[in-house]
Amino acid sequence: MRIDVVTIFPEYLEPLNVSLVGKARASGLLDVHVHDLRTWAHDRHHTVDDTPYGGGPGMVMMPGPWGEALDQTLADGYEAGARRPALVVPTPSGRPFTQETAAALAEADWLIFCPARYEGIDARVTAEYATRMPVHEVSIGDYVLAGGEAAVLVVTEAVARLLPGVLGNAQSHADDSFAPGAMADLLEGPVFTKPPTWRGQGIPDVLLSGHHGRIARWRRDEAISRTAANRPDLLRRADPAAFNRKDREMLSILGWQPGPDGRFGPNPDAVEE
Amino acid sequence: MRIDVVTIFPEYLEPLNVSLVGKARASGLLDVHVHDLRTWAHDRHHTVDDTPYGGGPGMVMMPGPWGEALDQTLADGYEAGARRPALVVPTPSGRPFTQETAAALAEADWLIFCPARYEGIDARVTAEYATRMPVHEVSIGDYVLAGGEAAVLVVTEAVARLLPGVLGNAQSHADDSFAPGAMADLLEGPVFTKPPTWRGQGIPDVLLSGHHGRIARWRRDEAISRTAANRPDLLRRADPAAFNRKDREMLSILGWQPGPDGRFGPNPDAVEE
Repeated sequence: MRIDVVTIFPEYLEPLNVSLVGKARASGLLDVHVHDLRTWAHDRHHTVDDTPYGGGPGMVMMPGPWGEALDQTLADGYEAGARRPALVVPTPSGRPFTQETAAALAEADWLIFCPARYEGIDARVTAEYATRMPVHEVSIGDYVLAGGEAAVLVVTEAVARLLPGVLGNAQSHADDSFAPGAMADLLEGPVFTKPPTWRGQGIPDVLLSGHHGRIARWRRDEAISRTAANRPDLLRRADPAAFNRKDREMLSILGWQPGPDGRFGPNPDAVEE
Repeated sequence: MRIDVVTIFPEYLEPLNVSLVGKARASGLLDVHVHDLRTWAHDRHHTVDDTPYGGGPGMVMMPGPWGEALDQTLADGYEAGARRPALVVPTPSGRPFTQETAAALAEADWLIFCPARYEGIDARVTAEYATRMPVHEVSIGDYVLAGGEAAVLVVTEAVARLLPGVLGNAQSHADDSFAPGAMADLLEGPVFTKPPTWRGQGIPDVLLSGHHGRIARWRRDEAISRTAANRPDLLRRADPAAFNRKDREMLSILGWQPGPDGRFGPNPDAVEE
């Protein structure tokens, strides 16, 4: 996969040389190019922003430098043999970036990231390129950053670890939170390793039992109870067909019961007791 | 505010020297310290992980190095005059990190970040420190990263920009997506700056009208329609009292109508037409 990033803070993208993404680059699985947007700003101060039409606080990134930067980036990529580009524009106004989005973007050949600063990029830029390629405006969460660069790191890392060959052990995806399958809609519970006693704290006996069935059951109970505590939204929307008899016992202990549509929710009576 | 980060990839935190956070450090508003966890791993290979009790794929971070690292970090911070520490542990199993969480963390004096790698940190570590200080296990979104370092950048940036003195113009918060007030639950619409015509595309006439009321109305209509398209979940949970007559007209044009509880949702009939 080819990745281009156009930014006014190229040094913010240094983590793309580190760890998983750095290794994927070194092994040739990822071909990453970071470009300084100011290269395409032609005044003495390399200005890339101006005041918003219609007034209001903040500055807006001008379409001129972005258009030149993207044209050059596209020309260079095509020249190097890249095909089927897609733009990824991180913005709090975008569609939520989820594990599903990561999996979809992992199918792409070439991603060009456009992290905005200030109040955003002039809307004509995405309108222009949307006539020629997919444009994904994505939001990594319900919070406001100083710019899109941190989101580029997040999206790149989430996508890169799904590319074939990047993670050593394909198995490692199977137990991920948000992975499809048995653990879909459940958060992972606590994990333990050596030593067996640390600062007076032991580990749950069941983990030393060697009994795979009981260990799996314990892990699932912990996952259900953590999800109920931290992400009741996930548990509420979970498909009730995914819960077996033991799951239902655990949900009942937590005060969750099936509602009129069969999906589980906290029992309001239990809360008042 | 003092910030400590304990990580096996200190170089991933280089962006904390850049842009907004870098400037806040330079001006003394943020005091950031990044520590290499392997400093507290005592074998020849500086090992920080081992196999999980109970079996399964992946590795778990051992409590030993984390305990020593946190004890030393706490001792150094107290010595330097820091008070009231709180741990922040990024994990997909945590509570959602939102703009509200960012505002709460911005009130803290001292944040110590514990970004995990592999399958996570031995659960006894947070249990140990939770007896002495607040521990925030947070998830920045429903996707899986290779480690918590990208989340540390996200949380630090979202928190830092809320600290007094960090953003030049206090006004800049007011129009943020997710800011409390008139725009709560609405995404920001498109923005435009010079030139007035770019590659054949003009800008909406209203923005040149000089008529503040009409501009504000246009912006609100655009915000409502972008939210309906990209984040129907936000619009569905919005307080209907926040919608005036013109907002309701816009919602109706988009095919949204009030439901039995007064909150707005897409009209199923309109969708079928």
